[in-house]
Amino acid sequence: MALSTAIDRSECQRLDAGDPLASIADEFIPGEPGTLYFDANSVGAMPRAAEPLLARHIGEWQRLRRRGWSESTWLDAPRRIGAKLAPILGAGVDEVIVCDTTTLNLAKALSAALSLRPGRVRIVGEAGTFPSDLYVAQGLLAAFPDRRLDLVADGASIEPSLGPDVALLYLSQVDYRTARRHDMQRLTQAAHQAGALVVWDLSHGAGAVPAELDAIDADFAVGCGYKYLCGGPGAPAWIFAARRYHDAIEPLLAGWMGHASPFSFPLDYAPGDGMKRFLVGTPPVIANAVMEAAADLWVRVEPREVFRKHAALGDLVVALADQELARFGVAVASPREARARGGFVALSHPHGASVVAALGDAGVVASFRSPDNIRFGLSALYHRHVDVFDGIARLVGILREQSWQQDKYKVTKSI
Amino acid sequence: MALSTAIDRSECQRLDAGDPLASIADEFIPGEPGTLYFDANSVGAMPRAAEPLLARHIGEWQRLRRRGWSESTWLDAPRRIGAKLAPILGAGVDEVIVCDTTTLNLAKALSAALSLRPGRVRIVGEAGTFPSDLYVAQGLLAAFPDRRLDLVADGASIEPSLGPDVALLYLSQVDYRTARRHDMQRLTQAAHQAGALVVWDLSHGAGAVPAELDAIDADFAVGCGYKYLCGGPGAPAWIFAARRYHDAIEPLLAGWMGHASPFSFPLDYAPGDGMKRFLVGTPPVIANAVMEAAADLWVRVEPREVFRKHAALGDLVVALADQELARFGVAVASPREARARGGFVALSHPHGASVVAALGDAGVVASFRSPDNIRFGLSALYHRHVDVFDGIARLVGILREQSWQQDKYKVTKSI
Repeated sequence: MALSTAIDRSECQRLDAGDPLASIADEFIPGEPGTLYFDANSVGAMPRAAEPLLARHIGEWQRLRRRGWSESTWLDAPRRIGAKLAPILGAGVDEVIVCDTTTLNLAKALSAALSLRPGRVRIVGEAGTFPSDLYVAQGLLAAFPDRRLDLVADGASIEPSLGPDVALLYLSQVDYRTARRHDMQRLTQAAHQAGALVVWDLSHGAGAVPAELDAIDADFAVGCGYKYLCGGPGAPAWIFAARRYHDAIEPLLAGWMGHASPFSFPLDYAPGDGMKRFLVGTPPVIANAVMEAAADLWVRVEPREVFRKHAALGDLVVALADQELARFGVAVASPREARARGGFVALSHPHGASVVAALGDAGVVASFRSPDNIRFGLSALYHRHVDVFDGIARLVGILREQSWQQDKYKVTKSI
Repeated sequence: MALSTAIDRSECQRLDAGDPLASIADEFIPGEPGTLYFDANSVGAMPRAAEPLLARHIGEWQRLRRRGWSESTWLDAPRRIGAKLAPILGAGVDEVIVCDTTTLNLAKALSAALSLRPGRVRIVGEAGTFPSDLYVAQGLLAAFPDRRLDLVADGASIEPSLGPDVALLYLSQVDYRTARRHDMQRLTQAAHQAGALVVWDLSHGAGAVPAELDAIDADFAVGCGYKYLCGGPGAPAWIFAARRYHDAIEPLLAGWMGHASPFSFPLDYAPGDGMKRFLVGTPPVIANAVMEAAADLWVRVEPREVFRKHAALGDLVVALADQELARFGVAVASPREARARGGFVALSHPHGASVVAALGDAGVVASFRSPDNIRFGLSALYHRHVDVFDGIARLVGILREQSWQQDKYKVTKSI
């Protein structure tokens, strides 16, 4: 991004005027008038098409009832929506399927990957891995008593920890507190050289920054549908497995939707082809309708344009933080270079939780993570450069007037 | 039910006039005019309140985004909806939670129950257990290599199979083909006497016939939300665990929503109180909105009235089958006594699949299961006795005119 030393609003308007993705913002519901939402890292905006798609599925439920399974598109939704998400993930259309939650999909990926690396004792994670991901591993270890989870302190310690006893690297692409992004290609290559596999959680990156799953020879990955992907709060998640493993996987979590021929009702499990075996129970028709409205937008955009614009928006937050916020004690907590950042930019302030609460009252929805991270989640699909400018301008106002020091902002919590 | 030897439509109207649940039918969308839906065993009708509740949650998504988690009712929905379903299940309000799918909840119940019965080798199931439930067990056995699944041929063989090596009975309350219902109290008692636990799948009974989970001292149970409970196609499922086990369960499938304090983001899993530990990933807000519309109806009805009316509707199908259908080669494949039947009544015909297809064209939605079962799923909340009469009357027409023999009905499949 070519920014002059002092950025003003008109420069942001100029950037918006040249934005090839500008028109896609019209496909989203803008939210409350006057409110600026920087929580794409938490709950993305609602695609306008979600309402008609919901109405269609609700109408089918009313009219067709059980016949919706054979006469409508309900049954194929997990595969179909997965194929629509594949391009933004850099995956083949037959390598992604939409189902269940991120956490449950991690349990599937982790158990599958462990079964592909018998005899190797260690799962290497990192203290910055999203905690829920660690809970999945801790829970599953009851089923794999000969394995153990080793947490290394930071990203720099991951490669040195690799060795012939390592079955897997088990990592979040992006640190949920600071947005520090791993070099997925380098770590995947290093793991493979050590004979290990990698399970990636891309929740804080997918739809914002590149994954390039096929190009980097990724093994397994999962991510949520509700952040940058805009599938709605608690949307169905997705799971990726490289094509080369599909046939070898005997699911630990087996169910009828993963069966080769579920409607013959045989007594014995026989896994379906490809990603189908990662399905377990009955697909959530209503939730999938909303998720598909989002997926339909992802097939309309050029991934390179998404990543380029997202990086530019993040660079703008960093530049404006330097220009406008440093004098109020706000620092950039995320990597300054876009290629090392995930989907949001974290700014630090000693009273970050109070600042986020005051921002909320000023019509700016950001989010807080301990100890002092103010997170601005950025969407290449619906954020304009002027939104970023205006959001930072409101933050300047709060810091200048010290309104975050009001009693009502003293105790805050965030999800 | 006091039925005269020959039942006519006016007698059904008389029964409807005296039905204390008659008014609750107005709370459902009736579907296509002229169509009679007997697929409550597959996808229940849509509660009218689902649309406004959906609209409320969609509006919250648009307006609040991530703040919905703290400012709306999203986060507590699994517990709150579970508490609303508890009465119809005969469970305590703190013993039921709504989440994930039936199949995944079976994985949770099965792994929890197995961990409570170490050293006992056998899981006893039955060939009539719903196949997906068997797949769950087959998949999980990879994690419990010292256990094995033994399928007995029929219900009569279950009790003789009990012994000191049995960890669990793992059963469907209702056979999905014939509606034969197990005596849950007797089998639970027999299992307990042998030192074993019982995991029940109540999908084909919950909301139609009694479960009385607390009264019978049940251990674990699960069920889907989309059949008689009317939570919509692919609705979130529910899981029950008896209060006495809550503290002892270390979940195999662990995730942040089951953590005692997820928003402190500690690195180590610590299970939350009670049923909370059965939660794994982020709750599906949109799907839960629909499920809650259904749950709100279940707290308005008296369970005894539901079971009484459901039994009467089933008895009416049986009586009309004897009176009107026997001469066309249709037999009653379900138990003739209501106390031994689940949520639907199965009638058998050598060309059942063709008959179900012809019924569909005649505006009667039933369902087929191999080899010859025509299933009529009955809802005490929205079916009238005259609906049953009219549905059987249309079936008589099809059988009399042999319209099911038309070529277009030759190849059929059902889900």
